[in-house]
Amino acid sequence: MSSDKKRILILGGGFAGVYTAMYLEKGMFWGERDQYEISLVSLENYMVFQPLLPEVISGTIETLHVISPIRRLAKRTRLHTREILEIDLERKVVTLGPEFLPKTKELPFDHLVVALGSRLNSGLVPGMREHAIPFKYLGDALRLRTAIVQVLEEADNETDPEERRRLLTFVVGGGGFSGVECIAEMNDFLQSAVSAYQSIKASDLRVILLQSADRILPELGEDLARYAHKILEQRGIEIRLNTRLKAVTAEGAVLQGKSSPETEFIPARVVVATVPAAPHRLVEKLPFEKDKGGRILVAPEMHVVGSAFVWALGDCAAVPQPDGIMSPPTAQHALRQAQTCAANILATLRGTPLRRFSFTGLGKLASLGHRSAVAEVMGIKLRGFIAWIFWRAVYLSKFPGLDRKWRIFTDWCLDIFLPRDITEVRIFFPDSVSRQHLHTGEMVFDQGDFGDKVFVVISGEADVLRDGQSVATLRAGDVFGEMALISQIPRSASIQAKTPLDLISISRDAFEKLVTHLPGVKTSMNEVLQKHTATRDAILKQMEDAARKS
Amino acid sequence: MSSDKKRILILGGGFAGVYTAMYLEKGMFWGERDQYEISLVSLENYMVFQPLLPEVISGTIETLHVISPIRRLAKRTRLHTREILEIDLERKVVTLGPEFLPKTKELPFDHLVVALGSRLNSGLVPGMREHAIPFKYLGDALRLRTAIVQVLEEADNETDPEERRRLLTFVVGGGGFSGVECIAEMNDFLQSAVSAYQSIKASDLRVILLQSADRILPELGEDLARYAHKILEQRGIEIRLNTRLKAVTAEGAVLQGKSSPETEFIPARVVVATVPAAPHRLVEKLPFEKDKGGRILVAPEMHVVGSAFVWALGDCAAVPQPDGIMSPPTAQHALRQAQTCAANILATLRGTPLRRFSFTGLGKLASLGHRSAVAEVMGIKLRGFIAWIFWRAVYLSKFPGLDRKWRIFTDWCLDIFLPRDITEVRIFFPDSVSRQHLHTGEMVFDQGDFGDKVFVVISGEADVLRDGQSVATLRAGDVFGEMALISQIPRSASIQAKTPLDLISISRDAFEKLVTHLPGVKTSMNEVLQKHTATRDAILKQMEDAARKS
Repeated sequence: MSSDKKRILILGGGFAGVYTAMYLEKGMFWGERDQYEISLVSLENYMVFQPLLPEVISGTIETLHVISPIRRLAKRTRLHTREILEIDLERKVVTLGPEFLPKTKELPFDHLVVALGSRLNSGLVPGMREHAIPFKYLGDALRLRTAIVQVLEEADNETDPEERRRLLTFVVGGGGFSGVECIAEMNDFLQSAVSAYQSIKASDLRVILLQSADRILPELGEDLARYAHKILEQRGIEIRLNTRLKAVTAEGAVLQGKSSPETEFIPARVVVATVPAAPHRLVEKLPFEKDKGGRILVAPEMHVVGSAFVWALGDCAAVPQPDGIMSPPTAQHALRQAQTCAANILATLRGTPLRRFSFTGLGKLASLGHRSAVAEVMGIKLRGFIAWIFWRAVYLSKFPGLDRKWRIFTDWCLDIFLPRDITEVRIFFPDSVSRQHLHTGEMVFDQGDFGDKVFVVISGEADVLRDGQSVATLRAGDVFGEMALISQIPRSASIQAKTPLDLISISRDAFEKLVTHLPGVKTSMNEVLQKHTATRDAILKQMEDAARKS
Repeated sequence: MSSDKKRILILGGGFAGVYTAMYLEKGMFWGERDQYEISLVSLENYMVFQPLLPEVISGTIETLHVISPIRRLAKRTRLHTREILEIDLERKVVTLGPEFLPKTKELPFDHLVVALGSRLNSGLVPGMREHAIPFKYLGDALRLRTAIVQVLEEADNETDPEERRRLLTFVVGGGGFSGVECIAEMNDFLQSAVSAYQSIKASDLRVILLQSADRILPELGEDLARYAHKILEQRGIEIRLNTRLKAVTAEGAVLQGKSSPETEFIPARVVVATVPAAPHRLVEKLPFEKDKGGRILVAPEMHVVGSAFVWALGDCAAVPQPDGIMSPPTAQHALRQAQTCAANILATLRGTPLRRFSFTGLGKLASLGHRSAVAEVMGIKLRGFIAWIFWRAVYLSKFPGLDRKWRIFTDWCLDIFLPRDITEVRIFFPDSVSRQHLHTGEMVFDQGDFGDKVFVVISGEADVLRDGQSVATLRAGDVFGEMALISQIPRSASIQAKTPLDLISISRDAFEKLVTHLPGVKTSMNEVLQKHTATRDAILKQMEDAARKS
């Protein structure tokens, strides 16, 4: 930690960041080990092997086998598993958020490698953040798996045909690599899991893929994409082309066709979002030139345009290939970019000439589940079982770490003869204070329901219905639903969204804590309660009067 | 679902409940399948194989392999994965909580089997609920594993020796089977995991077992317990006998010796609680005769004393063995109780004679990790490697489901030559509104810290310190810490517990939601803010005046 060491700081623990660290370690001469210090910041202490992530949904691969501990891959790199708060290019310092103690930490650097990837841009579609399950990180795959089993458990006992249909409908937004591989594995899992449920037949399932373009897999040639389309349809997957996700609610997905203003509502409890991508929050703030997707422009030598000490690669950077086209966001490109980036950082430190990024891609692979895949490798097109064997061989050979290769190989062997796992590991609990989005006409709750939440209207309007009659309208700032919580009686009215509606919901437990201990809430709740009680008393009196007259 | 079917309803998805369902299915004649309907309610759709749960901590067994899906074990039983709200013995109806829709569900029964197990009684020790990790369910094992890796990650980069020591200290409360097996596996994991951390040596670790009695493993004979004690100590585990956990905070454990009123504070970030057990909340409410541990008294025929249609077994029941002693809470006893209970329910329905519970236990086994164990089987005592082989053989043979046996066997084989997994799966996020307990003298935060939470005092007193000087005292109902959140500046004062202190903490995100949208909070926060700003301005003025004078 002496100050004369040159400090190389890598931000991001994906393929791009971790492989940069690995290539730096590999490229350093023995004598340079004391001169250069490599650090890497990643919120997770592992790297996710993205290409195999869909197999976690179906349980073909054990959850933890699709990730590899960064420490074991880059042994001489100092790892910091904290959130990044700020990048200060003037002072050459990155500030990390607190962990156990409420104290931030500063990491100074001489060279900075930005490999922060991209994030799901859930802000564009109302309700996506609140109700759709993203598909990008390991936690997402686990959440999705849990959600699928949870709806099957409920559907098995559900007697209302409408709710049953909603529970057994699954929607995936995005027909690119990620969406297709995700829906293929989901469908495989569903098809085999239903055998454990007495009252669910495979034909009760409805699995829908939404794609805004006019074909799926735009990354591949048209004939392979058509083949994949046919295969997925044969397995019962409904593909809706030229259709995009317009909104997501707790009860379903709102779709819109490309050339029509009309919307369609598909009742569903599980909606998965794989698009659209947006730049990382920290990348957005960096004062560099970017392309229209928000990716940092880098030179073919991998340093950021206009900077000699900041480097960028992976999904957050626009890296030109020798043919002038920008590298696509795939693992194989990130890996080669890392190689060039690491070599050029070392060359800069040594004062030797830099080299240019010269990779144009080896090929493209997409798994379609059920022992089939499509591949385009060096001009050769493969499909079906042979492509699938090729797909597995490629990724097994590419998986970093020998122990993980063994574990995955074992998983694949056991998968041949053991049944799919249907355990629902309930470790995801909704936060006690969360947001909720509703489509026009949807019910927040029905009169007579069990009251387990209090709501505050953020935007939009809602009708208060008593016995089907609208008795009031709720607007921004209005609080409702607290009566059933406080007095432990069923909901005394129904609440229905009159317009698209955004709410905050507060759980019974958090609400009780807040009411009991926070002075302001107590007072305002008492006011709201008194008002509501007065309203209810008035209504009861009216009803009594009416009853007396008749 | 016709109403002339006899409905047997089992509450609880542990060994006792699931095996009752299995034995009922097995014991039914072909013709009875249409006459009897078996239902089981469990929040999880799987049964945890408790004896192997400690192996999940070390990663010897993959997380999901230690659980078995209930549907696959009891195929003709209807499974409901919801919370139980109420048991109504008059109407013979059990009410379940809502799932996706805010609607409860009623399950009528003719025979009720109560197999709800026990829970950790965290109410007795201040701070245990908030800061200790229980060790009972699958989620606990995962949480513990994640917590262990998280402290190692932090410790590797920590430069403050005091905080580093705190991060590398691990405390387990309870020296029975559960505590001993837990600490043995934790220690194994820690010893092998540290090799991946550059700046942590095995000798930096401090692992402490607390036992309130004068020896560990009271379930076993004294010589085996002494052997286990020696083995654990040889591995570096500190065993504190006659010592109990008096309080737990975010920063450590407060201990108290049996015969002394003095307390000792051990700084630690990971504190595990395996005792004490208490009856399930629903069992507490049942109007049956109970023993002093709160367990339901049952006849040797397994029905509840004083009831002909309610049966109880497992950890929530006091089941007399033929020798008059009550059955201990182990899997082998639950299994045999289930056998008797199922047979007697069928006998009651058929009008044939009941039989009495006649099992007295086959033996006792405790794993000590690191390929050693202690065992007492039919009078024969085993220890060390031979006991460990026996331990594995017994539990592998007892694990329900052939697919799981295969998976566990494979895990054990891979464990021989693959390294321990050190991935930290961060899927547990603290709730945005949570409680916190502090010991006298502990700091809530220091002046200059990063502000990420607002606090409300529930009970106790705290000092507000500015530059070491106490400037105010906080009491129940006082709100503090909101300044740093609103104005994004570091904490302007330190807060220290003057007495044992209980707080509610609200995260930045939840606080912003509440302040923005909840009218009462907004008003009261504004008031608090104005008051605080006035105080700060006054202090600043004083300081300026003082500076001017000097």
